Amino acid sequence: MTSPLALPFPDLPPIAGVRLGVTCAGYKAWERADLTYAALAEGTTVAGVTTRSRCPSPEVEWCRRALPLGRARALVVNAGNSNAFTGARGRAAVEAIAARVAGATGCLPSDVFVASTGVIGVPLPIDRAEAGIDAVLDAPTATWREAADAIGTTDTFAKGAIATAIVDGRTVTVAGIVKGSGMIAPDMATMLGFLFTDAAVEAPFLQKMLEAANATTFSCITVDGDTSTSDTVLAFATGAAGNAPLADPDSPGADAFMAALTDVCRQLAQSVVRDGEGASKFVTVAVTGAESDRSAHRVAMSIANSPLVKTAVAGEDANWGRVVMAVGKAGEPAERDRLAIRFGATEVARDGAVAAGYEEAPVAAHLQGQEVEIGVDLGLGEGQATVWTCDLTHGYISINADYRS
Amino acid sequence: MTSPLALPFPDLPPIAGVRLGVTCAGYKAWERADLTYAALAEGTTVAGVTTRSRCPSPEVEWCRRALPLGRARALVVNAGNSNAFTGARGRAAVEAIAARVAGATGCLPSDVFVASTGVIGVPLPIDRAEAGIDAVLDAPTATWREAADAIGTTDTFAKGAIATAIVDGRTVTVAGIVKGSGMIAPDMATMLGFLFTDAAVEAPFLQKMLEAANATTFSCITVDGDTSTSDTVLAFATGAAGNAPLADPDSPGADAFMAALTDVCRQLAQSVVRDGEGASKFVTVAVTGAESDRSAHRVAMSIANSPLVKTAVAGEDANWGRVVMAVGKAGEPAERDRLAIRFGATEVARDGAVAAGYEEAPVAAHLQGQEVEIGVDLGLGEGQATVWTCDLTHGYISINADYRS
Repeated sequence: MTSPLALPFPDLPPIAGVRLGVTCAGYKAWERADLTYAALAEGTTVAGVTTRSRCPSPEVEWCRRALPLGRARALVVNAGNSNAFTGARGRAAVEAIAARVAGATGCLPSDVFVASTGVIGVPLPIDRAEAGIDAVLDAPTATWREAADAIGTTDTFAKGAIATAIVDGRTVTVAGIVKGSGMIAPDMATMLGFLFTDAAVEAPFLQKMLEAANATTFSCITVDGDTSTSDTVLAFATGAAGNAPLADPDSPGADAFMAALTDVCRQLAQSVVRDGEGASKFVTVAVTGAESDRSAHRVAMSIANSPLVKTAVAGEDANWGRVVMAVGKAGEPAERDRLAIRFGATEVARDGAVAAGYEEAPVAAHLQGQEVEIGVDLGLGEGQATVWTCDLTHGYISINADYRS
Repeated sequence: MTSPLALPFPDLPPIAGVRLGVTCAGYKAWERADLTYAALAEGTTVAGVTTRSRCPSPEVEWCRRALPLGRARALVVNAGNSNAFTGARGRAAVEAIAARVAGATGCLPSDVFVASTGVIGVPLPIDRAEAGIDAVLDAPTATWREAADAIGTTDTFAKGAIATAIVDGRTVTVAGIVKGSGMIAPDMATMLGFLFTDAAVEAPFLQKMLEAANATTFSCITVDGDTSTSDTVLAFATGAAGNAPLADPDSPGADAFMAALTDVCRQLAQSVVRDGEGASKFVTVAVTGAESDRSAHRVAMSIANSPLVKTAVAGEDANWGRVVMAVGKAGEPAERDRLAIRFGATEVARDGAVAAGYEEAPVAAHLQGQEVEIGVDLGLGEGQATVWTCDLTHGYISINADYRS
């Protein structure tokens, strides 16, 4: 069943220097495409951010080793098996994939980026991966929509985003696709995001920009607080637009490109929340007045991950006491008697008590909508952060408990 | 509906020096007793631990101020209204309660301990509290069971525990009652626990013992990870047993008393988990091989608070990949390739991959029971911790979302 918060897939044009393909490697007993391939023009630079899990998948380790080289010629994404926690056999599978692509295309194995999503603990079958790569190299060019579908697991809708910027007199495009939401599904893990641009960007600067964009976008979403072993976001810049390569923040057009990159990351990140398991409401949590931005982020995440706050939103219940609770438990500087809370535009609490003249009606009306905003001002400093989450419903339990793997 | 994990209320004898009473103050529109009173003999010492929330209730602040004095003559517990986040009016309510008891009984206001549980943000009505105190002072002596019922809110069963120890040649008794489980219920908050003993214990030593017992009992339970504004555990020692007062760990009988105190704390803490909202399984998470006990505790709590682990337990699903995920996200030292995981007595993973010869059948059988144990060995050091939680079911969502406050 498609999420009630789903957005239509955007109109994404081809990106010069990127050729997509999909095929069915058969990682599970299904007929759908589950291996996605992106061939990248010579000279493509790459940047990436990966999970902070202490139990990362071998794909994550592979990407981490290759990223400092800054070059990419191919991306392989496997859906249906995350290959995480599979020991030496899992590492061998990733190496086999890179070697197969390198042998067939003449690039180096370290030019091949690999990401996988699905069941944890089952080694990715090397024979199926190799046969899939052979097939996809001969496959017709796929569309962004086909690729977005093929990287998905229990996603209920295909997710993509696009933005443009003027760099060096040329219009460059940033397109991206994403799947999942944290540890999104039964036996399925991982958020994977892939951004492609025809802009020319030097790899170290692309890395800096991606890390900065990630900090305010992908790192600001949560569905259930459960961080995957395999989360990966990669950005590829083919340079086909022919602009003078962006090298640092002073390069002409760097600001515009950064804005476009961040815009695509935010759209993709929010689309993941919109496909959160069981989600019926899209929730924005905005914290201001903290001692630092980092502190504000932690308070916002404490609210966004609180089962009691999330169930209150699901129940359209103006239960602001649960927000007080979540602020109080965050472990960050907070003073009860300076705290102010709003739901939508309505202030419900101020100075450590219910707001004067508070009426529940406008808050109840706000909560009945699909887009809910919770604002908290801590009254301590200038730190602020905004994070996005969804509500916690029977749907989440049904997806994750009414099930035997 | 009573929790399927409920235990019968134990046979608790009176504790010399303690006289209980209950009455209906009418904090909500109900007929049940909602004000509990304990009169404590002259010379009673007291110890307490309270919530770490940065938004504590005025009751918590009151107890914190009185605890260093070490003396207690009365305990008042209000159910149905937590009086948290109520500003100056909330503080005035606590002061009025203490003053009323002090005036009627001739003790000091600082000898009166107050705890409240229920809706956040609504000042406790002073007139009802005062009338309730007047009534309870004239009420017949109540039983432990009546007191355990009267301090409850949405608890589904009354919770108590008892243990004895030989101190200075005398048998002393530790009895306790508890309500709730973290932020347990819609508009209802708080875990409140109260222990009473006829032993003579000097207040500073009682405080040290309670803190030590708390660290391995109440601090090791979680239902939803949502810490209340009002959590409070108080221990009262009347001294009526006539033993030479316990003053330090070298006092004869101190070890036996500490064991009894810890035993009662553990029974009460576990009984709270057994009444966790929607709970159908009692889950023990035991972490060994961590770099420190503190690190082990954090890893155990990451597992115990993971919605995906908790829903897997609810679904009787041997989804050990979710345990890997929860270890990985805990932010504590862990090495994937040293990690071992067991469900019950069955090892499922070792050295970063599935265990050799792993079969799901015995794990599935273990998960079908009401008592589930998840063991994790990190293979790094000697640190260990055990925590207790329950599964996450449709019942939790129904209680917290299918509801408008």
